[in-house]
Amino acid sequence: MDEQGTRLSAAELHGSLSDPALTSMNFLNEVANHYPDAVSFAPGRPFEEFFDLDDLHSYLRTYCRYLAEERGLTPEQVRRSLFQYGRTKGVAHEVIARNLAVDEGIVVDPESVVVTVGCQEAMFLVMRALRAGPDDVLLSVSPAYVGVTGAARLLDMPVLPVRDGPAGIDLDDLVTQARQARASGRRPRALYVMPDFANPSGISMDLETRHRLLRVAGEEGLLVLEDNPYGLFHIDGERLPTLKALDDSDRVVYLGSYAKTAFPGARIGYAVADQRVLREEGQTSLFADELAKLKSMLTVNTAPIAQAMVAGMLLENGCSMVKGNLREIDIYARNMRHVLTGLTRRFPRDEGNGVSWNVPNGGFFVVVTVPFTVDDELLEYSAQRHGVLWTPMHHFYDGGAPLRQLRLSVSLLSPEQIESGLDRLAAMIADRVSRQDEESEA
Amino acid sequence: MDEQGTRLSAAELHGSLSDPALTSMNFLNEVANHYPDAVSFAPGRPFEEFFDLDDLHSYLRTYCRYLAEERGLTPEQVRRSLFQYGRTKGVAHEVIARNLAVDEGIVVDPESVVVTVGCQEAMFLVMRALRAGPDDVLLSVSPAYVGVTGAARLLDMPVLPVRDGPAGIDLDDLVTQARQARASGRRPRALYVMPDFANPSGISMDLETRHRLLRVAGEEGLLVLEDNPYGLFHIDGERLPTLKALDDSDRVVYLGSYAKTAFPGARIGYAVADQRVLREEGQTSLFADELAKLKSMLTVNTAPIAQAMVAGMLLENGCSMVKGNLREIDIYARNMRHVLTGLTRRFPRDEGNGVSWNVPNGGFFVVVTVPFTVDDELLEYSAQRHGVLWTPMHHFYDGGAPLRQLRLSVSLLSPEQIESGLDRLAAMIADRVSRQDEESEA
Repeated sequence: MDEQGTRLSAAELHGSLSDPALTSMNFLNEVANHYPDAVSFAPGRPFEEFFDLDDLHSYLRTYCRYLAEERGLTPEQVRRSLFQYGRTKGVAHEVIARNLAVDEGIVVDPESVVVTVGCQEAMFLVMRALRAGPDDVLLSVSPAYVGVTGAARLLDMPVLPVRDGPAGIDLDDLVTQARQARASGRRPRALYVMPDFANPSGISMDLETRHRLLRVAGEEGLLVLEDNPYGLFHIDGERLPTLKALDDSDRVVYLGSYAKTAFPGARIGYAVADQRVLREEGQTSLFADELAKLKSMLTVNTAPIAQAMVAGMLLENGCSMVKGNLREIDIYARNMRHVLTGLTRRFPRDEGNGVSWNVPNGGFFVVVTVPFTVDDELLEYSAQRHGVLWTPMHHFYDGGAPLRQLRLSVSLLSPEQIESGLDRLAAMIADRVSRQDEESEA
Repeated sequence: MDEQGTRLSAAELHGSLSDPALTSMNFLNEVANHYPDAVSFAPGRPFEEFFDLDDLHSYLRTYCRYLAEERGLTPEQVRRSLFQYGRTKGVAHEVIARNLAVDEGIVVDPESVVVTVGCQEAMFLVMRALRAGPDDVLLSVSPAYVGVTGAARLLDMPVLPVRDGPAGIDLDDLVTQARQARASGRRPRALYVMPDFANPSGISMDLETRHRLLRVAGEEGLLVLEDNPYGLFHIDGERLPTLKALDDSDRVVYLGSYAKTAFPGARIGYAVADQRVLREEGQTSLFADELAKLKSMLTVNTAPIAQAMVAGMLLENGCSMVKGNLREIDIYARNMRHVLTGLTRRFPRDEGNGVSWNVPNGGFFVVVTVPFTVDDELLEYSAQRHGVLWTPMHHFYDGGAPLRQLRLSVSLLSPEQIESGLDRLAAMIADRVSRQDEESEA
C-alpha cells in the first residue's frame, strides 16, 4: 500500500501550511513534549489544581434548572436545547450578557452576542467577514498573539504590525501604518488589540491611551477588535474599563474567552458584534447575524453541552467570573510577584548584567530581555541542558528574526516550581553569557 | 447612539454573506420558526424522544473510567484531559478508530483521525488545505448538501456540479467535468460524495458504482471526500461497504459525523486523512497532521468534554453505533416505509397525477416530483394555508432556479404526524394543481 498510496504534495496545499505562523506552534509544542520534566514557563494555560470532575455535573444540572425555572422551558424543551442542533448564535447568550454587565459594566443586547468555539473561532469569523477582497488588511499591535496571525494566514489576509511601546500601542505609528496602507491601495479594516495584560508582552494600556485609541480608530475608520482573555487577573489598584465599556459608537467588536476564567476544555468564547450592517435595499442587519451566517458554514453552532458547562459555572457565581475566580486571581497575583521578585534577586538591577524585564500588573506573562540572541536552538538547549522551558519572543513577530527576548508564563506553576525554574533560567543565562564571552575572546 | 454608531456596509463584507448558499439556510429556518404548528418534513434532525439528560452524566463518567482503567491515566491526568487545552487532533481518536473498525470494517491508524467540531469543520479544513490557489476547485455530486457549497463559499472555492443520476453519480459526467475544468485552466482537487442515503436525494450508490468511482477518481487524480452521516440507517438487505472500506490506495478522505448517531448537541465529527504529504526536503507528513495545523488556528481543539460524551456513548455500546442506535434504526425504517406507502396511497402510480418519488432504502430523505414549480413562495403558502413544511429542492443546486421537486425528511415525526402531514401535503398539491388548471384555462 505504501508503494501505491495516494500522495499529496505540500506545494499543492494552502500556503499557510508552510508558514511560520502555523509551524512555530507545532515546534513549540514538540519541544514541550520532548522535555516533560523541565520546569515550564511556556504554556499560557490556566491554573489546574482546582479542576474537579464533580463540577462538570453540577454545572450541567445548574444550567438545566435555569432553563426550566428561569426561562420557563418544559422538560422536553430543556432536553432538546442540549441534545439537538441549536441556535447558530448560541444558547448561553443571555447569561454571557449578564456576565458582561456584572464583571465589565458592558451593557449589550444578548442578540449581539455570538457564542463561538473558543475565542479563536470568533477572531476567524470577524476576519472572514472583513476580508472582502485582496486589498483588505488587518492592523495588529506587534508583538501579537499567534492565534491572530494564524487565523489571518488561513484567510490570506495580511496583518500589518503597529508598534506597542510602553503604553501598549504607539498611536502615532497606528496612524502612520493605516495611512501608508491606504496610500499603497490597501484597505485597513480593523485593529486587533489586547489592552489588558497582553499576550505576549504583559503590557496594559492606561486609561488615557484607551480613550485616545478609540478616537484615533474613529478618525481612521477602523473597527477595533478587543481581545480580553486576561483582564480579570489584576493585581493592584482599580481595574481599568475595557475599550468596549468606553465605546459610545459601536466601534469595538469585543472578543471574549472563557478558556482562562472557566476552563479551556469547554472551548467557549464569544464575539459581541453590535454594529449595524447596511444593505443596498436600505435594510440593516446586526453584524452578529452576519457572523452567524458564516458560523453556520464553519461549525454550525457551538456545542450546547459545552455552553451549558460555562453558563452553569456563571450561574453558580452570580454571573461573575471575578467571583468564580477568587482563588485563581490570588494565585496568579502571587505567582507574578514571585517571578518578579525572583528575577530581581537573581539579576540585581544595578549590576549591569544586561538582564531586564517588564513589570505587568496582572495577567500571565512577563518579557525578559537578555544580553544575547534567543532563538529556537537556544530553547532546545535550555530544555535539554538546564531543564527549563520558555517562549522565544520572535515567534510573536512577523518575519520572525530572533530577538534578545523571551516570554515567561507564570500561570501554571507552584512557588517551588517558580524558584527552581528561575534558578535554572539563571543558570542558562550565565551559561550563555559565558559562552558568548569565550566566543568574543576567541 | 443610533445616530452616531459605526456602520458597516454589506458591500464591504465578504461576498459569501450575500450568497444564496448562505442566505437560503436562514430563509428556511425563518419559515420554520414562523410556523411552529405546521407538520414539518423539513429538518434533517435525529429522532429526539430517547434523549435523556441522565445519559450525559453517564457518558462522562464512562469516559473518565475508560481513561483511568483502560488508558492508565492518573486522576490528575483525567481531570487535565477534560479541563485543559488538549491534543489538536482530539482525544477520542482511539475510540473513534475502534468504532470505524466495528461498524464499518474500516481499519485506520488513530493518528490519521482528526476530531472536529461537527463534520462541517472537517469539510472546511479539507477544503482549506486543498484550496492552494485561485485555480483549485471542488467537484461535487449535484444536488449537494448545503454545508458543502457553504464551506466552499467561505473559501471562494468554486464547486463544479457532477450529475447524480439513478446510481448516485454519473461517472461519465464526472470525467467530462474534471477534464473540462482542467482544459479551462482549473485544477479539480477532490470529489465530494455522500454514497449512502444522500442529503438531499436519498440515493445510494450500488457496489459496482463504488468500485468504478474509486477507479475513475484514481485515473483523474482526484481525492474522494466521502461524507457518511446516514449510513447506519439502513432498511433492507446488507449494508454496502463505504468507499473508505474499499479504498486500497488512500484515495478517500472519510468524513464522519456523530450528529445523527449520537446527538447534534455534542458537535462531534471527524476526518480520517491517512494520505501522505510530500515536502520538498523529501520528508513526508500525514494529511491529518496538516489538517490539525489549520484547526489549531480555527478552533484550537474540539471541546474534550463534548468528545467525552460521544466517546462515553460509544464505550457503553461496545464502540458500535449500530448497537447504540437499535431503536432509532427501527424508527427511521418505520417512518420511511410509512411515508412511502402513504404517498402511494394518496398518489396511486397509475392515475397520471404527475406526482412521483424515489424509494430510498434508508436514511432520512425522499424526493417528491410534482407537476408544478416548487419555489420559496410556495413553501410559505404551504406553511400558512396547509400547515405543512418541506424543503424546495432548488436550494441544493448551484444557480438555484426553482424546480418541480421537494424534499421530505422523515426522521423526526411520529406515524400520526406523518399521516397528518401527508394529508396536508396532498391538499397543497391538489390546491396548486387546480390553481394551475384555472390559470391555463384563463
